[in-house]
Amino acid sequence: MSARAGIVVTGTEVLTGRIADRNGPWLADRLLELGVELAHITICGDRPRDIEAQLRFLAGEGVDLIITSGGLGPTADDLTVDTVARFCGRDVVLDAALEARIAEIIKPLMARFTGPGAPDFATVRAANRKQALIPAGSTVLDPVGTAPGVVVPGAPTVVVLPGPPRELQPMWHKAIGTPEVQQAIAGRTRYEQQTVRMFGLPESGLADTLRHAQQVIADFVRLEITTCLRGGELEIVTRYEPDAAAAYGQLLAVLRERHARAIFSEDGSRIDDLVAGLLAGRWIATAESCTAGLLAGRLADPPGASDYLAGGVVSYSNDAKADLLGVDPALIAEHGAVSEPVAEAMAAGALRRFAADTAVAITGIAGPGGGTPDKPVGTVCFSVALGDGTLLTRTTRLPGDRADVRERSTTVAMHLLRRALSTG
Amino acid sequence: MSARAGIVVTGTEVLTGRIADRNGPWLADRLLELGVELAHITICGDRPRDIEAQLRFLAGEGVDLIITSGGLGPTADDLTVDTVARFCGRDVVLDAALEARIAEIIKPLMARFTGPGAPDFATVRAANRKQALIPAGSTVLDPVGTAPGVVVPGAPTVVVLPGPPRELQPMWHKAIGTPEVQQAIAGRTRYEQQTVRMFGLPESGLADTLRHAQQVIADFVRLEITTCLRGGELEIVTRYEPDAAAAYGQLLAVLRERHARAIFSEDGSRIDDLVAGLLAGRWIATAESCTAGLLAGRLADPPGASDYLAGGVVSYSNDAKADLLGVDPALIAEHGAVSEPVAEAMAAGALRRFAADTAVAITGIAGPGGGTPDKPVGTVCFSVALGDGTLLTRTTRLPGDRADVRERSTTVAMHLLRRALSTG
Repeated sequence: MSARAGIVVTGTEVLTGRIADRNGPWLADRLLELGVELAHITICGDRPRDIEAQLRFLAGEGVDLIITSGGLGPTADDLTVDTVARFCGRDVVLDAALEARIAEIIKPLMARFTGPGAPDFATVRAANRKQALIPAGSTVLDPVGTAPGVVVPGAPTVVVLPGPPRELQPMWHKAIGTPEVQQAIAGRTRYEQQTVRMFGLPESGLADTLRHAQQVIADFVRLEITTCLRGGELEIVTRYEPDAAAAYGQLLAVLRERHARAIFSEDGSRIDDLVAGLLAGRWIATAESCTAGLLAGRLADPPGASDYLAGGVVSYSNDAKADLLGVDPALIAEHGAVSEPVAEAMAAGALRRFAADTAVAITGIAGPGGGTPDKPVGTVCFSVALGDGTLLTRTTRLPGDRADVRERSTTVAMHLLRRALSTG
Repeated sequence: MSARAGIVVTGTEVLTGRIADRNGPWLADRLLELGVELAHITICGDRPRDIEAQLRFLAGEGVDLIITSGGLGPTADDLTVDTVARFCGRDVVLDAALEARIAEIIKPLMARFTGPGAPDFATVRAANRKQALIPAGSTVLDPVGTAPGVVVPGAPTVVVLPGPPRELQPMWHKAIGTPEVQQAIAGRTRYEQQTVRMFGLPESGLADTLRHAQQVIADFVRLEITTCLRGGELEIVTRYEPDAAAAYGQLLAVLRERHARAIFSEDGSRIDDLVAGLLAGRWIATAESCTAGLLAGRLADPPGASDYLAGGVVSYSNDAKADLLGVDPALIAEHGAVSEPVAEAMAAGALRRFAADTAVAITGIAGPGGGTPDKPVGTVCFSVALGDGTLLTRTTRLPGDRADVRERSTTVAMHLLRRALSTG
């Protein structure tokens, strides 16, 4: 027995690609955690005919649960509730208590807009009455923003959620707690899921190891393995029923035996979290050329980054390398701005200028111009310097376009940082 | 008459959200340009049964063209071609010339991998033979990577493309040129599409203006208007048949009359391109606290940014503000690090340190901690300073979480830069 689900994402701006859908992937993750199999995600514009066609399609495919996102606003093109009610064969009824709650929510919001162009309250309240119309017999999910959601029981059960991720996410957690949704997914299989991450291994090397694992692990077929190469990192996600845990243990042993150096995470931790952990008690500064601040920006992503991030210099011009980081112009003249000696001088300058104990420097050719036969586009030099004199300097040739090279450079720098801080 | 299309995105890693789909939105844009109406995007895993169900659904909805992406690799879970052939009622046949071309392509790629874990050539060639099996009577789209695509004529016509965007995009352009696809979309309507962008107007203000426009423009119904609020910018996309151009002219006049100050682009240009244009002949430096390099990184996005970007300082700590930018510690003690006087001192320091003629400073509270009643999370101070003494300083309260505040801060800075450089 198992439970299957489908997701219907509505919204012309999503269908036409002007907004990237974040709800489908997020809900997919939540379903996976629950052990509900996601069969289909479908996206359509704000057209009732198309929304209804997708609902019918998913019902025809025998899913137990449909989740919709979007189309719950007060305007005329927000039609999801009406469409779902019709699809479920239910009338739409006014929920007076809900109407009052929505009015309470929008009153303070309205106060923010004054002057010409501001909507008047009576008009808005009338428009919002529409949001209090729900399918008969459905369960209301209280609004997090201004739009309520509903759970409509049936076969399939339909959960109707608003489009903004900040509203959808907490409302999904409420929806999951309702008896209607619990009943719809009663047949789910509980899975374990484990993630291993590697860096610096070609995908074909992993493919070869998995073929080997298939031969030596008896219960290999009970492991559902997905591999994904992204920005130079390999992610290996394995899903299995709890009684296949031994097979997963064997797989992990094979991976460790063959790729000990490449594995940087066995519990799904990401490189950014690992580096943030290793930086506890340290004081780091960056010196960036081609990435122009992206590495410093990435180091500042976690809340509390001010505990370890002193700052950085974006030394995009050669003058900035000399004036702000003290790189000797003669060194640049001799070796070129993209060279290991210059990367090391940049790192040394960052250590000194910020009184830091950890520094990373990046200098490279992101393209599209600036490449030479010796140093083609994608050539990037890195140097990590620690206060105790530890120095880790590397040159790589990264694939892809300007944006790829810059983005991937920050990833390489994070891995070099991890290596220097783990062994230092 | 019109032409409708559907897109089928396959791949377990996309369905489960581990890779964000870039092909659906990209193809949606291309279809829009062609005047082909996109009805549905559907996403499923690498399961032939689910892929076939989606093909049947789209055919049942009467689309003229289906485009699939993904599932063309050499491994056993790449099943799109087989599934499409079955759906179209065609046998699969070996294209010997294609097989030879694929072998030529993979030979040099194989040479890159040597040593243990490297796959052997005969095995790979056998696996790649699978990629030379195509539906009888279909037209081959030569591989850009290693996977060929096909166009299968019929009702609907199916275009089968590989998953990697770098391969899919050029192959789509080839597919569009085939007589089979041209015939399938013969009924398309040619549209004009125009984009206006605004900054600093609440969405409700625009909604009110559009209601007004609806009353005063006779042919308003012939304009298909989509609005989208993103990071503080409003995007208004209008699509219309060529003979409704006068109505669009009237709409533009209404927007100009009411929102002259908010409009920054009438031809779809993005703020980054406008700022890059205004920076020609100038020399810019940044001083960033909460954004920690993201603005410098954004200014360096366009190729050729080295013509105007001197560099920047990420002054995350107060010491860095003093040591690298010359901000008087007494100023920080008096007003706090997040204050207009400190932002102005940072900008002045950046001008001086980089011998620049343009500088932008950002200092703010990105959260989640660090907020006070006076300066809650989201409070961000900006200052733009020009060599001629022009100074533009602003404080904003930005909504959202840490990542939103930091991202949106760079957008506000870009707009302040534009304003300072347009009037300066």
